[in-house]
Amino acid sequence: MRNIKCILAYDGTRYNGWQRQKTNSNTIQEKIEHMFSKLLSEEIEIHAAGRTDAGVHARGQVFHFHTKSEMDVQQMQRAANEYLPKDIVIVEMKEASERFHSRLNARGKWYQYCINDSGIRDVFYQKYEWEIEDKLELERMKKAAELLCGTHDFLSFCSLKKGKKSTVRTVDKIDIYRKQGKIYLDYYGNGFLYNMVRILTGTLLEVGLGLRKPEEMTAILDGKSRELAGQKAPAQGLCLMKVEY
Amino acid sequence: MRNIKCILAYDGTRYNGWQRQKTNSNTIQEKIEHMFSKLLSEEIEIHAAGRTDAGVHARGQVFHFHTKSEMDVQQMQRAANEYLPKDIVIVEMKEASERFHSRLNARGKWYQYCINDSGIRDVFYQKYEWEIEDKLELERMKKAAELLCGTHDFLSFCSLKKGKKSTVRTVDKIDIYRKQGKIYLDYYGNGFLYNMVRILTGTLLEVGLGLRKPEEMTAILDGKSRELAGQKAPAQGLCLMKVEY
Repeated sequence: MRNIKCILAYDGTRYNGWQRQKTNSNTIQEKIEHMFSKLLSEEIEIHAAGRTDAGVHARGQVFHFHTKSEMDVQQMQRAANEYLPKDIVIVEMKEASERFHSRLNARGKWYQYCINDSGIRDVFYQKYEWEIEDKLELERMKKAAELLCGTHDFLSFCSLKKGKKSTVRTVDKIDIYRKQGKIYLDYYGNGFLYNMVRILTGTLLEVGLGLRKPEEMTAILDGKSRELAGQKAPAQGLCLMKVEY
Repeated sequence: MRNIKCILAYDGTRYNGWQRQKTNSNTIQEKIEHMFSKLLSEEIEIHAAGRTDAGVHARGQVFHFHTKSEMDVQQMQRAANEYLPKDIVIVEMKEASERFHSRLNARGKWYQYCINDSGIRDVFYQKYEWEIEDKLELERMKKAAELLCGTHDFLSFCSLKKGKKSTVRTVDKIDIYRKQGKIYLDYYGNGFLYNMVRILTGTLLEVGLGLRKPEEMTAILDGKSRELAGQKAPAQGLCLMKVEY
């Protein structure tokens, strides 16, 4: 069996997230599995580095799959992109070692969140950013972000109920900067909990608006309760940029 | 009467071009005039620096209009953007001198055409670029572009029939470059004929593909016949970037 690794980009707007569901539900995984199963005339199951929520985008999602097909990878990529919906594209496809696993081997992920606080909507990019009415103070947000970096129990920043699984994660870096009138929040870490990047963003936004103090972040982490953190930022501003191996 | 100058951005995808038509026809001019007439409770007629074709986009279209309203411009801009469709936005609005005319006072225009020859569609930008299958040779295109710059009769490069009006125009500069995997053609000039930028782009593309020699440009200009030039590039890759005064 060959093991094929793919880097994938998608506009998540019209999809019900990544993960295949029991009932036919318009997910990205389904679209890709369906396409490959037809193209290669065998049942194909794909495994992604991570799930993305409904409406979240990707420039560098990674998945792998096993196949008996002998089709050349370049030809397979070209055919796949022809059959995939226009808002999903395989950016890179290559042969991987037998043991490569897109999720288990992932060493880090980079997520980017885009906020437009310019007061003017961007007619070309409005599906990929969060438009807000007030101006954000970046210095406050940077101070808060520093307190969130490192290894912590991020239970307060996720939509999961306390269960048996660990909610401890390491956030290596949160870069916050302005570029061409937009604000970008770049999150780097070894893994993120369900909704974690969006709740971190919503909380940092409240700091940037002056509704919270940067110092509060420590108490939110320590409190281990979702209610302590801020709102969940909308899905459309979020993009999975890269998975590191 | 006040004279108001506006800088406008729009995603032209779903519009039938700029210019108002006799029958109700979903043009950008109509949408804006309709909105202002309601907002200011008077009949508003707007005048643009130039018309754009169906499907062409703008980041820096300019128009002006006269009004008796005493509404503050900031407030007027905010209200206008609230009532305009999501794919049209007034980026800047200010009081202009009584004699300012967006078309007659324009000293130059900058149009940009975007081509994707990477072989991979850009799921986030596909409505704003022309995706082609073969690679382009930029050096050949730059040579041809040089021959097109200057003051010439551009009759061969427009969709108008020879009439009484002059088809002589001055193209100041055509910059052709690669950026993040895309090819951009930046056209600067004092005015462009109907479809001229798209026909120039289609012709330069044929040079880039090796189907024409750069030297042919001179003969095409001299021949003064539309048949001599190349195909018209699709509208979606074109954007009016800026109007200079």
